[in-house]
Amino acid sequence: MSELAAADLDRHDTIRAVNYAGGVLRLLDQRELPFTETQIECRNAIEVAQAIKDLVVRGAPAIGIAAAWGVVLQAARLEDAGHPIGTAMLDSTFDTLNAARPTAVNLAWALARMRAALVAAKGDVLSVLSAEARAIQEEDLAANRKMGGIGAGFFAHGIGVLTHCNTGSLATAGFGTALGVIRAGFAAGKIKQVYAGETRPWLQGARLTMWELVRDRIPAKLIADSAASHLMKSGAVQWVIVGADRIAANGDTANKIGTYQLAISAKRHGVKFMVVAPWSTVDMATKHGDDIEIELRDPAELLSISGKRTVVDDADAWNPVFDVTPAELIDVIVTERGAIERPDVAGMAKLAGAQG
Amino acid sequence: MSELAAADLDRHDTIRAVNYAGGVLRLLDQRELPFTETQIECRNAIEVAQAIKDLVVRGAPAIGIAAAWGVVLQAARLEDAGHPIGTAMLDSTFDTLNAARPTAVNLAWALARMRAALVAAKGDVLSVLSAEARAIQEEDLAANRKMGGIGAGFFAHGIGVLTHCNTGSLATAGFGTALGVIRAGFAAGKIKQVYAGETRPWLQGARLTMWELVRDRIPAKLIADSAASHLMKSGAVQWVIVGADRIAANGDTANKIGTYQLAISAKRHGVKFMVVAPWSTVDMATKHGDDIEIELRDPAELLSISGKRTVVDDADAWNPVFDVTPAELIDVIVTERGAIERPDVAGMAKLAGAQG
Repeated sequence: MSELAAADLDRHDTIRAVNYAGGVLRLLDQRELPFTETQIECRNAIEVAQAIKDLVVRGAPAIGIAAAWGVVLQAARLEDAGHPIGTAMLDSTFDTLNAARPTAVNLAWALARMRAALVAAKGDVLSVLSAEARAIQEEDLAANRKMGGIGAGFFAHGIGVLTHCNTGSLATAGFGTALGVIRAGFAAGKIKQVYAGETRPWLQGARLTMWELVRDRIPAKLIADSAASHLMKSGAVQWVIVGADRIAANGDTANKIGTYQLAISAKRHGVKFMVVAPWSTVDMATKHGDDIEIELRDPAELLSISGKRTVVDDADAWNPVFDVTPAELIDVIVTERGAIERPDVAGMAKLAGAQG
Repeated sequence: MSELAAADLDRHDTIRAVNYAGGVLRLLDQRELPFTETQIECRNAIEVAQAIKDLVVRGAPAIGIAAAWGVVLQAARLEDAGHPIGTAMLDSTFDTLNAARPTAVNLAWALARMRAALVAAKGDVLSVLSAEARAIQEEDLAANRKMGGIGAGFFAHGIGVLTHCNTGSLATAGFGTALGVIRAGFAAGKIKQVYAGETRPWLQGARLTMWELVRDRIPAKLIADSAASHLMKSGAVQWVIVGADRIAANGDTANKIGTYQLAISAKRHGVKFMVVAPWSTVDMATKHGDDIEIELRDPAELLSISGKRTVVDDADAWNPVFDVTPAELIDVIVTERGAIERPDVAGMAKLAGAQG
């Protein structure tokens, strides 16, 4: 990140979805974006769990951070009431928060960290918990900034890039993963133009990524997901930059539906393809992308838009949420441990052995 | 079409967007589909022109047919009023209809046919005009049914197919082009499952194609446009079948945005790719797909859905309406003159020399 002063980055990194201060956790309500910027205030763990459940906060890292602060809020309530802060009193709090989104890996991971800190705590337990939550949040931000520098190091000057879904400040402690690399590349003067696919059916690209880019004054254009190949053929983009939900031991990458299609098209057009994700996304126990189960969601998500039905009654739909991009179509995977070019089993194993 | 009895086809071909009877032209209002099936009644040429302008009727062949009946309606009004039916009295009618959608090739072509019939008419001029409009409509339907038989001849039994946009009865006299091949393939027992891409930003696939398929009892599932590659990888589809807006002399094909992406992905997965269009779509004067200008439309079309804004204010979008699929990615072009496998300059020239 030698080319980038922190101040340059800060100008293009103004959004924080999870904010704790003075005994109150304020969550930017992502259900209301991009038109209303409402902060939901949480003062205890129940309120945090409900906000996670209701999708006020989304994105695996952001959910984990919010849950960690939920533990702190509940500990403070205990202290206010003159109770001791210990595992006996906080067990139900951990259970409630864990159950809010049981499949989110980062949620369980963050709560396990908070529990370990609680067990080891001596003296001012509330301060220990608060420091741990703060550490989880700051480490995520630091990892994202580090990945941003590593990723941007691959870019030539004056490029255009295409991204998919939302991988930005809203989904993390801040800065983002793939969108963090884009922020870093723009701050370094390398990226001139960003294109964002709207990401049907949930429109995370249209609703969230475009909001982040407009807010942070990064030149961005929305495209229909199906316009990506025509865009690549036009020569307007040199890199496709996406996040990941799970990376197998051979580099195969599961991510939002549509990612695979972008990678196929990028290969045809000589456009480079970058995956950006924290190392916690890598699952070395999964050998191959074919072993990753792809979640099929309710067809209804495709049959209405913004609550308004668009398709005839009695119509059916096929609604897979993710797809798998084979490693052969990926030019580089960027993690906070470093980058893996032309990822394969050997390259993944090498970084798996490295310290984060 | 030897395998298909007409009765088999009729059961899966029930929709007619343009219906003339007893001095009234009834147009199925496509703006209201799929939720309201309203017929707009036209009793003179002005009303027909307005319906074309207002997109009550869409699809180049359907527009041409509606305009032909507009001439008949106006001629009948002249006869009712005791006026002679001739070019002097109908000149403004031709002008009004031609101006309704000045870029639609089929509109000008149909009106030129009606004018030629008028000039040559002897005796009962109204009957001559009525017969010509009927012929234009019936010839379009016959061409579509012929293409359906030719296209379906390529299919094995038990296949799945993917289509894009709307190329069905709504866009033509009936049956459709690409969707006609699908109707024929289903009636022949060859197609077991149809998938339709929703076709952002206008959602013709979601709104219109799904409506046609549900109405005609053909098993169909809607997909997000970006799920197409994952679908192909799953093995669920053996053919992609699309229409065309313009076919160059080397077989390069301009069609709805997203078509190119489907062709790239089909090639990777060994899925066959078929283009279905009447010969009038072929433009032998255009040598190469790169010579086809791609219309860029208002970014606003991507920034709202069903009239509701989905993207932050100040956001920009890039909204190309078409893209070009190179002939090398097309396995077969089907026209009413016959099919061109592995289309190239020689194959196109051969059919150009054949009689329609």
